[in-house]
Amino acid sequence: MQIDGRPYRTIFPDPDGVSVQVIDQTRLPFAFELQRLASLDGAARAIRTMVVRGAPLIGVTAAYGLAFAMREDASNAGLDHAVAALAATRPTAINLRWALDRVAGNLRQVQAPERFARAFAEAGRIAEEDVASCRAIGNHGVGLIAEIAQRTGRTVNVLTHCNAGWLATVDWGTALAPIYVAHEAGLPVHVIVDETRPRNQGAALTAFELNGHGVPHTVVADNAGGHLMQHGQVDLCIVGSDRTTASGDVCNKIGTYLKALAAHDNGIPFYVALPFSTIDWTLRDGVAEIPIEERDAREVTHLTGRLADGGFATVEVVSPGSPVANPAFDVTPGRLVTGLITERGIARADTEGLLGLYPERRQAA
Amino acid sequence: MQIDGRPYRTIFPDPDGVSVQVIDQTRLPFAFELQRLASLDGAARAIRTMVVRGAPLIGVTAAYGLAFAMREDASNAGLDHAVAALAATRPTAINLRWALDRVAGNLRQVQAPERFARAFAEAGRIAEEDVASCRAIGNHGVGLIAEIAQRTGRTVNVLTHCNAGWLATVDWGTALAPIYVAHEAGLPVHVIVDETRPRNQGAALTAFELNGHGVPHTVVADNAGGHLMQHGQVDLCIVGSDRTTASGDVCNKIGTYLKALAAHDNGIPFYVALPFSTIDWTLRDGVAEIPIEERDAREVTHLTGRLADGGFATVEVVSPGSPVANPAFDVTPGRLVTGLITERGIARADTEGLLGLYPERRQAA
Repeated sequence: MQIDGRPYRTIFPDPDGVSVQVIDQTRLPFAFELQRLASLDGAARAIRTMVVRGAPLIGVTAAYGLAFAMREDASNAGLDHAVAALAATRPTAINLRWALDRVAGNLRQVQAPERFARAFAEAGRIAEEDVASCRAIGNHGVGLIAEIAQRTGRTVNVLTHCNAGWLATVDWGTALAPIYVAHEAGLPVHVIVDETRPRNQGAALTAFELNGHGVPHTVVADNAGGHLMQHGQVDLCIVGSDRTTASGDVCNKIGTYLKALAAHDNGIPFYVALPFSTIDWTLRDGVAEIPIEERDAREVTHLTGRLADGGFATVEVVSPGSPVANPAFDVTPGRLVTGLITERGIARADTEGLLGLYPERRQAA
Repeated sequence: MQIDGRPYRTIFPDPDGVSVQVIDQTRLPFAFELQRLASLDGAARAIRTMVVRGAPLIGVTAAYGLAFAMREDASNAGLDHAVAALAATRPTAINLRWALDRVAGNLRQVQAPERFARAFAEAGRIAEEDVASCRAIGNHGVGLIAEIAQRTGRTVNVLTHCNAGWLATVDWGTALAPIYVAHEAGLPVHVIVDETRPRNQGAALTAFELNGHGVPHTVVADNAGGHLMQHGQVDLCIVGSDRTTASGDVCNKIGTYLKALAAHDNGIPFYVALPFSTIDWTLRDGVAEIPIEERDAREVTHLTGRLADGGFATVEVVSPGSPVANPAFDVTPGRLVTGLITERGIARADTEGLLGLYPERRQAA
């Protein structure tokens, strides 16, 4: 997608053919800077320090990291070491592990001298596949926006939570892909962006990328969504998913469930956009079965932002001495989800709906 | 209630007999400071700059302001001027206007030399009535907590939103009054405190007052409440109300509606504590009829807090250039409210429920 009229991806090969450029997401939204990655250590550090974030982008970065490692030591020992080092950067990221296994499995079939080129090309293929998958989600989801635009004859207001945009992927995003496709097609679309406390990915990242691409949007506190829905100011909700059960329950950023409840109470369609890789076919009951990560209290008690003089500061905003809880995700039961938008199409958020899109899973189930 | 073992009210007469002390709420939660008010200008400034906030406390402060004005100019012209000056400090505060009318009406019945003493005493009576009203809400509401404690044999987890505690009143508070009464009675109670973006009254004020009084509590991002309810970590919700319709709809801080939806979805009782003065007997449909104040975008885009060195700073946290919407309140329909706790008892959140507590309104309705 674009930033100020110039197209970017979150990660792309450098013209030198042996390194990649990434957008440093720790500097957003106040500074836009690229960072060059050319070594195993550099790639691992970029993942660990969240220069890159979002499951698909982490996977692609790790794949390139494995390529860089093959320039440093292309032996089997070097390969094992690199896989371990990269896997340790974000231990819970399923996508990261999947990308490493794919590239490493591929490399083990070839001799050391071929490994760098093979890994670099394979990482590029993973990136292209992610772009195609997100674009397909966009193509399937855009009809929801087009239908409302045609029916109402006015701008379609889409509420989203957190950042499931192109910054979390290589390009297009998941929840935002239908919005970008709609915008490209000239459909009148306006996005209501939940701030998404405590880490503010909505206010910082989603707002930044929509602004950069020129998509009309409005940032609101997470508390505001229900009120806006009561007053007809939301036509459609689209959010992402970190993990989806075989029964259509969706684990996404904390607060998603509250918006799904409000959408349900006001008869507003609530869709979840996700690549197949987030579907966990072993799970049936998301609320009971998905463990929810408890994160650092400091994410709630402190905020970092820009000072009037352009500098940056971290301020404490919670009454000192008060304990804090900080669950990072919640589960929205499939009964509150109007539909799931995947790279294969739109399905009902239940077992039959998902099996309809992924019939090869029928025997496995 | 107490701050570090010492009992306070938000406003109380100074021993000099001609002034009052107030807690400077603009300094909370990082500094606890009293401010002495002794003049019309001082009282008006304290209201306007939010040194005092919360409808009942504003009303009492304005009443004292009228008393101070009578020391400066006890003529009818002086009285009219003071009423106008105080009414202009927070034009939309119904309670403020009510307190001014009550004291001014009283003063017009006596000669100028008696007016200061009369007004000072009347302001004191308004304060005592507020304390009694809040205490009565606490006495009526404590049974809800006691019942859960007896039934479960463990600590009762009560979720609240925004600050409807003693800092918003003279003492006890509204939503927090049942909690303080329970705590005083030795019932095991723990409060889950919504941060309450964008102004953070939960994280700053509710957490401060619960901490000061020694009531166990945990601060969470507004997004977290639904998840906690899904996992049995909330037994009861109690919130306040800024305006209540005759049909039991409740207008309260933005985000209240989302918590009511989550409580309903999880079978958790959702109560609203309110003094009769918030009931607007002319309204039937809160969502349709109550206008919602749109506040400054800067409340969302900027946060002020404490730096590591003890100083204070304001930081910008939203992507620059993104438009912001900031509705301050939302309406929770009575169908989602288990009951209303008033100074007269607990009622169903509907017309018959309220008329049962306020039968004198039956003819008026």
